[in-house]
Amino acid sequence: MKNINVPSNWDIEADVVIVGAGGAGMSAAIESAKAGDKVVVLEVAQTAGGSTTLCGGAIYLGGGTALQKECGLEDSVENMYNYLSAAMGHSADKDKIKLYCEKSVETYDWLVSLGVPFKPTYTEDKVIICYDDTGLYYTGNETNYPYNTFANPVPRSHQVAGIASTGNVLFEHLLKAGEAAGVTVIYQAEATDLMIENEQIVGVRAVIEEAEKFVRASKAVVLCAGGFQANNEMLAMYAHPFVGLQIYTGTEFDLGTGIKMGMAVGASLRGMSNCVDWSFIYPPQSKCKGIIVNANGQRFIDESQYGAYIGTAIIKNQDGKAYLILDSKVLAEGKRDVAKMCEHEVILGIAKAAGIEPEILAGDMTMCAEAPTIRELAEKLKMDPDVLENTVAFYNKGASKGEDHLFRKDGKYVTLLDSPPYYAANLCLDAAHYLHHGFITMGGLETDLKSRVLDLNRNPIPRLYAAGRNTSGVQGEHYNSGTSVADAIIFGRIAGQNASAEPKK
Amino acid sequence: MKNINVPSNWDIEADVVIVGAGGAGMSAAIESAKAGDKVVVLEVAQTAGGSTTLCGGAIYLGGGTALQKECGLEDSVENMYNYLSAAMGHSADKDKIKLYCEKSVETYDWLVSLGVPFKPTYTEDKVIICYDDTGLYYTGNETNYPYNTFANPVPRSHQVAGIASTGNVLFEHLLKAGEAAGVTVIYQAEATDLMIENEQIVGVRAVIEEAEKFVRASKAVVLCAGGFQANNEMLAMYAHPFVGLQIYTGTEFDLGTGIKMGMAVGASLRGMSNCVDWSFIYPPQSKCKGIIVNANGQRFIDESQYGAYIGTAIIKNQDGKAYLILDSKVLAEGKRDVAKMCEHEVILGIAKAAGIEPEILAGDMTMCAEAPTIRELAEKLKMDPDVLENTVAFYNKGASKGEDHLFRKDGKYVTLLDSPPYYAANLCLDAAHYLHHGFITMGGLETDLKSRVLDLNRNPIPRLYAAGRNTSGVQGEHYNSGTSVADAIIFGRIAGQNASAEPKK
Repeated sequence: MKNINVPSNWDIEADVVIVGAGGAGMSAAIESAKAGDKVVVLEVAQTAGGSTTLCGGAIYLGGGTALQKECGLEDSVENMYNYLSAAMGHSADKDKIKLYCEKSVETYDWLVSLGVPFKPTYTEDKVIICYDDTGLYYTGNETNYPYNTFANPVPRSHQVAGIASTGNVLFEHLLKAGEAAGVTVIYQAEATDLMIENEQIVGVRAVIEEAEKFVRASKAVVLCAGGFQANNEMLAMYAHPFVGLQIYTGTEFDLGTGIKMGMAVGASLRGMSNCVDWSFIYPPQSKCKGIIVNANGQRFIDESQYGAYIGTAIIKNQDGKAYLILDSKVLAEGKRDVAKMCEHEVILGIAKAAGIEPEILAGDMTMCAEAPTIRELAEKLKMDPDVLENTVAFYNKGASKGEDHLFRKDGKYVTLLDSPPYYAANLCLDAAHYLHHGFITMGGLETDLKSRVLDLNRNPIPRLYAAGRNTSGVQGEHYNSGTSVADAIIFGRIAGQNASAEPKK
Repeated sequence: MKNINVPSNWDIEADVVIVGAGGAGMSAAIESAKAGDKVVVLEVAQTAGGSTTLCGGAIYLGGGTALQKECGLEDSVENMYNYLSAAMGHSADKDKIKLYCEKSVETYDWLVSLGVPFKPTYTEDKVIICYDDTGLYYTGNETNYPYNTFANPVPRSHQVAGIASTGNVLFEHLLKAGEAAGVTVIYQAEATDLMIENEQIVGVRAVIEEAEKFVRASKAVVLCAGGFQANNEMLAMYAHPFVGLQIYTGTEFDLGTGIKMGMAVGASLRGMSNCVDWSFIYPPQSKCKGIIVNANGQRFIDESQYGAYIGTAIIKNQDGKAYLILDSKVLAEGKRDVAKMCEHEVILGIAKAAGIEPEILAGDMTMCAEAPTIRELAEKLKMDPDVLENTVAFYNKGASKGEDHLFRKDGKYVTLLDSPPYYAANLCLDAAHYLHHGFITMGGLETDLKSRVLDLNRNPIPRLYAAGRNTSGVQGEHYNSGTSVADAIIFGRIAGQNASAEPKK
């Protein structure tokens, strides 16, 4: 409804104006600048990086990347597609997944060309972020049933080398490459509106140093302003279960600003209810030998699944309530594994730097209940004792043969839970523990394979592009670690390339 | 992005222009016309009524309506609120629910004043639509745990008198009242755009008899154009699990047109992923003595819950797959109940008119599998036999004492399932049976308690109102039969009243 007239004199002029200097924005900026365009990036924060600098530094790529080959791992575009198209959920955009898989090998090479470091080592272990030099690992359900029947499991999370969380290392290289290519980043520049003339996007209105500025884009505007995980009002409207979680992964500026800027000029939305919440059982992976039950005492998931599947199932299907049940044997094994991890100097160093106990970092969980029998444990958890007793008895019946009849959990995580006392760890949303560390929004503006923003009739809005969590990307209702940052880079580059291909006005 | 200039000469002039002549639109129109305004309703179809004429004619009202009192039933606004605020789901707008409950008694009186017929009889039975003269009945989870702990169960679905589905009877009275008050309905009038001048809504662009017409609204425009259940593209973008179900409840014009008209002028959306799908087990209610299991063979819901809870749980949480398991005793009881219902002349008459077998109408279900043991039944359903066997054994353990330990299903629906052969009915979405008859969308434009449409900053868009399924109403992720039509009437009337209170331009 707001009627902002296009100014006769623009304050700033560029060919391509990008809103947001995160992973998507800088990837777009690099491509546009390399195409010879004058690029201005408007960044609301004091520093660049957005949620990319906060991410773990695992980039989900595959189809036979150089790093996969160096590790002797076989993958193909088709194999990667077969996995991702199942793992991203029914509502995922399959055409985007296909393009993502096809662009994967080239994207890895491009990152290497920018100087992003990777090490040619891999692990088959279930980890969140590697605490050593491991370069490739699993960050999804590749090895879990039924996904392992759709595609051959291959590690695809390409970990930027460095200590623990290395999104900052990745981003430093993107920023450096952008600056080298001549990109101008203006900090503390809050973009508020897209400017329209003759039914085309011609620029951006922004508040820079508390003054209204009009920024002309002679070719195109690219929205890369992130998701809406920090905006409780938008969460209430689109993704209600995630309201008030507080523990989002992103910055305080992930307010859906870019999504609203697109909406204000008639853009389509897609998948706005698709959020993902993490609730990691591992590390250590021995904890996957426990069973996760809902508030009724029923199992509902293979406990060795990727944490975002577990967390999202808890929040979306189990009303935010779940417990991990262990016997003393599994708990002791977990404690031993935690202690072993805490011998690593890397763990000790990170813990010290972060100001947390190394045991917590290594996955030690506080138990919320302990009891000599399952019945008594159930009573402490306010569950019907008959239900929990039946759940454990049925699980043990299969476990005695190494089998999980309910969810076909890998036999290496199936063991009898029969050594009292029994324990429960609280996985409820309102008792978020350290490893239950965040959620992101995955819906946003609907874009096509050229990263063009679509209008309400699904036609491209002339000269408007978007990428990253400002858009609905390759994810549907499910997520894999490393796909958000890779989606941002891949479709950010595509946005920059196509923005630069627009004729100059 | 579309730039439509406001014409110097309008083709049609009115004070209040309403888009859509369904339950919401006609309720708004009656109020505006009674306030003395010239009202024009643009209806895209050849006839009025929209999804209201297709609805069952049960209107969810309470808090002590005259009909409740005539039946000797006690209810209060608070008691109704306590139930609905729990039953509509976490994401429901609690303020809207409160106002809905407060307006309930008056709304019933208003309907009676328009001549809408109701009979002062009620039943405690679980029914979908009454096949007799019953005037009041349950159409939600009022009597189910845990809802019966939040509020005293009271029947609240006020059934418009007549044979079976009586939405058409309700709507005839609304239309008659509108016409008597001087409302003009223009048929085959496709509204396409809202016209803006000085940041206010001033009219509508429409295609009437294949010609572009501009319709001036000197006071306000009210969008009442229905949901988007007939628009697979929008379902894919906002409510993916419901794509392609085909069996929506609504008309071919429920394409989200009014939602997109609002979006095009910068309106907010809310709850767009909130859809509801019905999968009724009853009638006959004896079928609730069976157990519903997912594709793994686990129970996941109290089988006596309202069909929209069951259907929505299947589609959203169980990947669209579920089966009703019966033993021969429960099946035989169901068949007897069906036969008994088929003695009713009303049933025979409706079945004949609809061209379907009366047994199907009375709830007879085709069994998809039969086996002498639960193990063999599981094999036929491609489930792990150990899981289903455990599910039934655990259920029977409780049933032997008349208890459902898992979901606290009412004891009158709990019986041993131990009489072979055993049967399964297919409740999977891709095997939709007669009683699995539809879904509706519940998200739409965000409106406030005055039915004003809110913009992206949640400020009212001047002179724009909306009601009914064009908006997000009292429902969150859950639904009760009769709340959609009541929401349309209540907030439609509020829209009409406030539209007429606008100063004339």
